Amino acid sequence: MVLDKVNSPRDLKTLSEEELLTLAQELRSEIIRVCGQNGGHLASSLGAVELIVALHRVFDSPKDRLLFDVGHQAYAHKILTGRKDVFHTIRQEGGISGFTKVSESPHDAITAGHASTSLANALGMAIARDALREDYQIVSVIGDGALTGGMALAALNVIGEQRRKLLIILNDNEMSISENVGALNRYFKEFQIKKWVQDTQKWGRDVLEHISPRLFNLVDRAKEAAKLMLHQENPFYAWGVRYVGPVDGHDLKGLIHLFQELKELDGPTILHVVTQKGKGYSVAEADPIYWHGPPGFNPEKPEKVSKGYSWSAAFGDAVTELAYQEPRLFVITPAMREGSGLVRYSQTHPTRYLDTGICEDVAATAAAGMALRGLKPVLAIYSTFMQRAYDQIIHDIAIENLDVIFAVDRAGIVGGDGATHNGVFDIAYLRTIPNVQIAAPKDALELRAMLKKALERGGPVAIRYPRDNVEKAPEGAWPEIEWGRWEVLKEGSTAYILSFGKTLRYALEAAGENPEIGVINARFIKPLDREMLERLALEGYKLVTAEDHQRMGGFGSAVLEALSELGLKPDIRVLGLPDRFFDHGSIARMHKEAGIDAEAILKALAEMGVVSKPPALDSKR
Amino acid sequence: MVLDKVNSPRDLKTLSEEELLTLAQELRSEIIRVCGQNGGHLASSLGAVELIVALHRVFDSPKDRLLFDVGHQAYAHKILTGRKDVFHTIRQEGGISGFTKVSESPHDAITAGHASTSLANALGMAIARDALREDYQIVSVIGDGALTGGMALAALNVIGEQRRKLLIILNDNEMSISENVGALNRYFKEFQIKKWVQDTQKWGRDVLEHISPRLFNLVDRAKEAAKLMLHQENPFYAWGVRYVGPVDGHDLKGLIHLFQELKELDGPTILHVVTQKGKGYSVAEADPIYWHGPPGFNPEKPEKVSKGYSWSAAFGDAVTELAYQEPRLFVITPAMREGSGLVRYSQTHPTRYLDTGICEDVAATAAAGMALRGLKPVLAIYSTFMQRAYDQIIHDIAIENLDVIFAVDRAGIVGGDGATHNGVFDIAYLRTIPNVQIAAPKDALELRAMLKKALERGGPVAIRYPRDNVEKAPEGAWPEIEWGRWEVLKEGSTAYILSFGKTLRYALEAAGENPEIGVINARFIKPLDREMLERLALEGYKLVTAEDHQRMGGFGSAVLEALSELGLKPDIRVLGLPDRFFDHGSIARMHKEAGIDAEAILKALAEMGVVSKPPALDSKR
Repeated sequence: MVLDKVNSPRDLKTLSEEELLTLAQELRSEIIRVCGQNGGHLASSLGAVELIVALHRVFDSPKDRLLFDVGHQAYAHKILTGRKDVFHTIRQEGGISGFTKVSESPHDAITAGHASTSLANALGMAIARDALREDYQIVSVIGDGALTGGMALAALNVIGEQRRKLLIILNDNEMSISENVGALNRYFKEFQIKKWVQDTQKWGRDVLEHISPRLFNLVDRAKEAAKLMLHQENPFYAWGVRYVGPVDGHDLKGLIHLFQELKELDGPTILHVVTQKGKGYSVAEADPIYWHGPPGFNPEKPEKVSKGYSWSAAFGDAVTELAYQEPRLFVITPAMREGSGLVRYSQTHPTRYLDTGICEDVAATAAAGMALRGLKPVLAIYSTFMQRAYDQIIHDIAIENLDVIFAVDRAGIVGGDGATHNGVFDIAYLRTIPNVQIAAPKDALELRAMLKKALERGGPVAIRYPRDNVEKAPEGAWPEIEWGRWEVLKEGSTAYILSFGKTLRYALEAAGENPEIGVINARFIKPLDREMLERLALEGYKLVTAEDHQRMGGFGSAVLEALSELGLKPDIRVLGLPDRFFDHGSIARMHKEAGIDAEAILKALAEMGVVSKPPALDSKR
Repeated sequence: MVLDKVNSPRDLKTLSEEELLTLAQELRSEIIRVCGQNGGHLASSLGAVELIVALHRVFDSPKDRLLFDVGHQAYAHKILTGRKDVFHTIRQEGGISGFTKVSESPHDAITAGHASTSLANALGMAIARDALREDYQIVSVIGDGALTGGMALAALNVIGEQRRKLLIILNDNEMSISENVGALNRYFKEFQIKKWVQDTQKWGRDVLEHISPRLFNLVDRAKEAAKLMLHQENPFYAWGVRYVGPVDGHDLKGLIHLFQELKELDGPTILHVVTQKGKGYSVAEADPIYWHGPPGFNPEKPEKVSKGYSWSAAFGDAVTELAYQEPRLFVITPAMREGSGLVRYSQTHPTRYLDTGICEDVAATAAAGMALRGLKPVLAIYSTFMQRAYDQIIHDIAIENLDVIFAVDRAGIVGGDGATHNGVFDIAYLRTIPNVQIAAPKDALELRAMLKKALERGGPVAIRYPRDNVEKAPEGAWPEIEWGRWEVLKEGSTAYILSFGKTLRYALEAAGENPEIGVINARFIKPLDREMLERLALEGYKLVTAEDHQRMGGFGSAVLEALSELGLKPDIRVLGLPDRFFDHGSIARMHKEAGIDAEAILKALAEMGVVSKPPALDSKR
């Protein structure tokens, strides 16, 4: 194995070109093997293998800084930079991260996970380098999906003005997680076509056929693009950035040669590289959406597996049905059709569906515009990505109390994706905003009830649910729900556990059959059910709150505020995530470590004297 | 007066072209008169007069939707849409808003204040119009500064793909509040030059001279731009948007003619209009930065006035001095050089200063990049605009605990700018983020101490201060401060008021000479001074917290959390802003209405039995 000889990027410098080609194939096999075992970002990482080998051949990491936007395509980078022996631990408890992470390796230039951050980071680094009179290269690898995020475009604008030396590699595979949207991507596509046509004329059609069967198909579509021939060569001219490309991103020797030339250039340069998601693994090439981030599979006999019925699917089913009842309903996703369970909806209601691409801010404000003009927009968004639309929620939606529903997916600790993706701040950042209401269903049926009621009542409503599976609710079931009312799931004589969503299972487990301990489904976080809270406090019950969210500013904090306003001082314990970030790993284990699981609840109850000592729990958890 | 005949936009339809020209001059006079009286966004509104008259002549508001990005340039729009009799109340207590506001008038299509939102709003509206099979025009007016904000660029990308009928007017005056930055703006400038040169060749140089002396100067610069002549005509080609222009934005007849043509076109169109900030008022033309948003002045004899020594100036002075001591210090502003007190700094330390333009997200992540590569970035940002960088603070800065200082200006209720600009969420949305520390100085000296200490200690630190004047601190004074320690300003025998920043004055006023009431400068909000808090609670003091921030999730909430964790239950009242938005008006009056002023503090103390009844206060407040 060539890979055996590679322990750091330095070792690539001495390999022959033939060995490098072999190395690329070995990296591909290793990525497929480990993704088969752990699941992971397979297709993107396969598409970037040659790019990464060429980068490490030509540049000197960690002196030179290689920035991978999102960081999910950098598996080959991880393997080449001293992590080949731990690569099999990727995304696992205690293992390495699925994204680049500064604290994991000196070779990881940025901590990533969210899209479109690498250009602003690269800008800051280039300024720092020049201010400190240092001398190194800065290379940012960014996908065509991530490039059309607002902060990437805005950063490009500043980069074009600053004109500092840096290399931006536009890794153009015409995909985000699903197909890309947006005029720029269409432009790139047409632009690619045109260039390939020109190249064909120069190099001959046989060469092109040889490079890639996919590109050959492009030629057939090229006639439409003929009009483009008259336009300028550089789509980034207005940005003040030098443009080179497009070139074949799987031509390793070509890339090496090009990088050697480009590293000598001053100022900012964009190199437009065309790659194929899933390259070299036929199933992934054929269906790069499924194989973007599959769960484990058998590399020899790869098959799609069902991941079970998720909260996302429950939302997708509910909203699809609801759209038949409410003709003004409109669903928006910022590039998360599959993840948000919207594949079916997008097919059944294509005229009431918008994918904005990776721009949560635009998605939120477009929802505002729709609400202002008579639609009932539902923004399907992950908790962690909603952070990108924070100002828009306040400024464009909440001030005028517009009817926008946020279907907040992946709320709480998410597991394999780690700190960048945990949705553990939304209650704190949303509940401080006037007019915003927050609900969290205990099951798919309650999700349906909440969605329907939110639609009827209006105003901005966030409905949060976790990354998890859930029991499917019967089609056509639309139970009523009293807005703002909590639900007593189990009566208790001494104490009540107040919880909601995912942690309710811990509450029920902790209460068990103990008649002293009651459980309340505190499904409305804003407004709280102050009436029930007041009654519980007045009647002298001890209280424990538990939530899969930061303790600071979360639901428990809201309960403390309400009690303070009511002038009541019950015995209360607030359980939530402590003031630190949680990395990737097992959700149950992190909940335990955070002290929000059944055991922690029992411990709190014991401290309050409700139970003498925590009894042993079933091992089922 | 022609204006006397205009009570709604309908009345413009019957005016002659000569009357419209007169109307434009009358509008200009009225804007100057009222800005002289109240202060306000003078220069931008003067620059948009002809544009707005032409829009209302051709389009049918409110059936057609006219969106003004930021909304500060729309004074003529307010006057023409039924608000001429209340226009003199603009930005005043109980008067009309300084921005467009949906709840104020059916003619205000969006509620604005922050930049770059109009395109996403227009997109949402166009989708709603088409989905509901309605038929009306949507016109968005956006400045060249606001266009380079990320969410505007990203929205343009979706607009180009959706290809729905809407008109975008790029109001290009080469300015934000200060000069624009960014490659696109440079491109527009060069592009303008080229087009004017062509037009000159066609129309003759004398015509051009006649149009505007400013454009004449451009011709002299045109030689540099000659190379551009070879490039394509449409800078928005890649965006899939039709482009028309540039045209003279003060040629009223020309604009009317153009709008009549453009309204017949399908799909998205950008009309590039060149205007002059401050047009028609010589002082504002000459110095559009000062006259962007001046305080009141005498229209006959306009003079610049000093607004006193502000917290922004105190920050600017401090950071300028500090930069001499710390060569790695670097200051970033998202287009707020003047507002953030950075004019002097930008002159004394030009190589350690970056204006990113209106993109707070890029500013924050560029700070991350700098911090990763050895600089000590200070991001000067308004509390309300920091909402735009929320995800970047979490994802790019806090996860890796990077050394970034946020100088958070305009924290709390801001007065004249109203709900869109109040900085009343920052404590809630920041304190829930691990690693982020929050401090709030009581005076300029403490600001200096905190800045210096934050620089030494590292990690992300937000230092928040209000829109207000402050006593200047002596140059060279760098007092030490113990991080995380509160300060007892006045001893009390029965109760303590915990407050910080602006509301400390209310606390001191409420305490007066009463020996029972103490006052604590709770200058560290995260981490809290838990030791002092514990002592106060253990020693049986009654507590009142008061803050110029939402009660939900704010400082008081943090105190309740800490007390709950300590298992202590002192008698406590939490005062903060209630769960609603506050419009423009007097800060003192809003603080009173919100119940956070001295009177409210005394009322809380009375409820706790500390004072028998609230004594009469001095009228000085």
